[in-house]
Amino acid sequence: MEPLSKIISLADRARPLKKSNIRTISQAVDEVGGINLGQGICDLPTPDAIKERTHAAIDADQSIYSHHAGIEALREGILAKAQEYNDLPATSIDEVVVSAGSTGAFVTAVMTLLQEGDEVILFEPFYGYHRNILKLTGATVRYVPLGGPEDTFDPEVLKAAVTDRTRAVIVNTPANPSGKVWSRDELASLLAVMQEHDIVAITDEIYEYMTYDDADHVSLGSLPGAYERTITLSGFSKTYNVTGWRLGYAVGPDRLLEKMGLMNDLFYVCAPRPLQHGMLAVFEDLGDDYYAELLDGYYKRRALMCETLEAIGFDVPRPKGAYYAFADFGPIRDRPGFSNDVEAADTLIREAGVGSVTGRSFFHDPSDGVTKLRFCFGKELSVLKQACDQLLAAFG
Amino acid sequence: MEPLSKIISLADRARPLKKSNIRTISQAVDEVGGINLGQGICDLPTPDAIKERTHAAIDADQSIYSHHAGIEALREGILAKAQEYNDLPATSIDEVVVSAGSTGAFVTAVMTLLQEGDEVILFEPFYGYHRNILKLTGATVRYVPLGGPEDTFDPEVLKAAVTDRTRAVIVNTPANPSGKVWSRDELASLLAVMQEHDIVAITDEIYEYMTYDDADHVSLGSLPGAYERTITLSGFSKTYNVTGWRLGYAVGPDRLLEKMGLMNDLFYVCAPRPLQHGMLAVFEDLGDDYYAELLDGYYKRRALMCETLEAIGFDVPRPKGAYYAFADFGPIRDRPGFSNDVEAADTLIREAGVGSVTGRSFFHDPSDGVTKLRFCFGKELSVLKQACDQLLAAFG
Ligand SMILES: Cc1ncc(COP(=O)(O)O)c(C=O)c1O
Ligand SMILES: Cc1ncc(COP(=O)(O)O)c(C=O)c1O
Repeated sequence: MEPLSKIISLADRARPLKKSNIRTISQAVDEVGGINLGQGICDLPTPDAIKERTHAAIDADQSIYSHHAGIEALREGILAKAQEYNDLPATSIDEVVVSAGSTGAFVTAVMTLLQEGDEVILFEPFYGYHRNILKLTGATVRYVPLGGPEDTFDPEVLKAAVTDRTRAVIVNTPANPSGKVWSRDELASLLAVMQEHDIVAITDEIYEYMTYDDADHVSLGSLPGAYERTITLSGFSKTYNVTGWRLGYAVGPDRLLEKMGLMNDLFYVCAPRPLQHGMLAVFEDLGDDYYAELLDGYYKRRALMCETLEAIGFDVPRPKGAYYAFADFGPIRDRPGFSNDVEAADTLIREAGVGSVTGRSFFHDPSDGVTKLRFCFGKELSVLKQACDQLLAAFG
Repeated sequence: MEPLSKIISLADRARPLKKSNIRTISQAVDEVGGINLGQGICDLPTPDAIKERTHAAIDADQSIYSHHAGIEALREGILAKAQEYNDLPATSIDEVVVSAGSTGAFVTAVMTLLQEGDEVILFEPFYGYHRNILKLTGATVRYVPLGGPEDTFDPEVLKAAVTDRTRAVIVNTPANPSGKVWSRDELASLLAVMQEHDIVAITDEIYEYMTYDDADHVSLGSLPGAYERTITLSGFSKTYNVTGWRLGYAVGPDRLLEKMGLMNDLFYVCAPRPLQHGMLAVFEDLGDDYYAELLDGYYKRRALMCETLEAIGFDVPRPKGAYYAFADFGPIRDRPGFSNDVEAADTLIREAGVGSVTGRSFFHDPSDGVTKLRFCFGKELSVLKQACDQLLAAFG
């Protein structure tokens, strides 16, 4: 591509933006008519109860801008869920802002809190949007290794990453891509550092309904003393298979959430109105069995995905949460086509018609991800089976 | 409100944010059960063709993230409309980015172009979100008076506002709140300045289908030599009565729009997916008669609104476009309750149960709006009649 015409010089924050590896891979998969386990989307159907309420809202012309923090009924539902499921000490809908996806809530939170000169801590491996959105604020990102589902951070390394400019820390539990689920003890150890250094946490809990084995989802904001310095983010994308609907939310202390609401107004005006009404079904129509069935399906998919990757020689730590296998092809690195993550992703597309994401997408230093690939198993079981069969046929 | 707790210090861009006058007024109107002509929303129903396609998209589970620039079919429709209706020399869907409302497109454009140290020119009276979003970029806003529907800018004043840091100029035609529609000559005169000083224009044309009398909508980007330095914004909110759906778009030179697409990805991921599919109806089902009927209705509403305000003593320049009367109560300022815009807005709510927006909301210097109120006539005719009857009963 030629440089942009001289007349159009870009803002510094725009210059480094480039097409993500995920997009490049998705294109390559499409070209061979393959199955894309790269993108973090779930192609399962949306629950009927949500569809029905959305149809009704559209027919009733629930179509004008809502309050910038969302329609009241949805905020009430989220508040009750935050109290019951997340154990947060929230007491009023003034502590809830609905945004355009949890991504919108993340943008709103970091734009409210961070600016040039500030520092923010991000654990590795990280979710790429977290890193890229943090950079838009002008703040400097400091990385702390966290590792896989069975690993943890080293409190000394965390403390060493804190400076007097550290304003915030990002938590993601259950984590993308690693499948790590933070324990209460780990959260308590982080909270101690936050309290000592006056740090705020932004915690992305979008996979909160997907935990496996002995892992339980714990919200940082539920720990004593944590809520006043924690912004808890979640959303509907993953749990209800509506990634494209753009509905998520933040819960936190009201004086901060009030500012976030005003910031949300400027960036988003409001979350899509008729879809907000549809999402009331989550709180009024769906019962516990919905989550049990969801989990049941994901256990099956996790087993299939991980066992397949193991059968072809990958090292696959079992994720404790979310819907990704973050697998290491180190053991088969001497095979042709597996010298690094970019080559391996390409080999999988060409020889098995299966898309994955390169490990380097999740690390500050690309060499940390050089033997890793991420596979999303949030797929219709039949599609996932087909992908696994293709992997076995090509590399088994 | 107490100050935020010491532990939560905000970014500079968040500190000045406060509840807008429009929100405060809306609340006051709700309290008296009045009619709100403040907010710039249209409560007419959404066309059935759009609803039907949206229902179908939801039932077909068109629910995952779309391409960050929007689904291809919608971008094709927008491209054809940009060529035919706006006369833009666009040739490919690479020149189109769909965003979360025209507001999303505006955010994406200014975040791609502007940063601290840059300057941007905004004509007055302005749309408040333009000013507030521009400030989020860190750029300095320079104001140039434009005035009402029959006024224009002084080219010398414009030139005097340009410095070697001026990177962009914001155009809004038809304009909110003034109802000003830019003529081809005015756009040409602006373009000459843009070309001389290497300035880019961002032009918000969301009211492009609402022009009255002798006014025709002309897109800056259609002028020879303009397209390469112009980002044209529009959206579906106003023309199809779907302000809450959050669908708008940008059209412009591909190398710039490619960057904007990547910025849009970070802020929005994509515009709401099933609603994007629904909006295909605009290009595939709605015909010219839709726009003719729309305009016909707005002519009636404009007459009713303006004549009522005149009957109670306001000075009301007829808007040439959009759906606002930006009216001056200077002639009745000596009446009790009309000493300034804040008091007058309050008087209208208390005595007539009608909400409007204070003039100061549209000016850098509040005193410039001290005798003005904005009334939105994008209402069901019966509701608008009721509001006008109440105004006449109270002040006629
Ligand atoms: C950790 C994490 N947060 C947020 C998101 C995006 O969520 P939303 O669709 O609510 O913006 C994703 C999607 O991949 C994710 O993995
Ligand atoms: C000039 C102008 N631009 C943009 C908008 C908002 O448009 P959207 O709903 O597409 O974000 C409005 C709404 O009042 C407006 O008056």
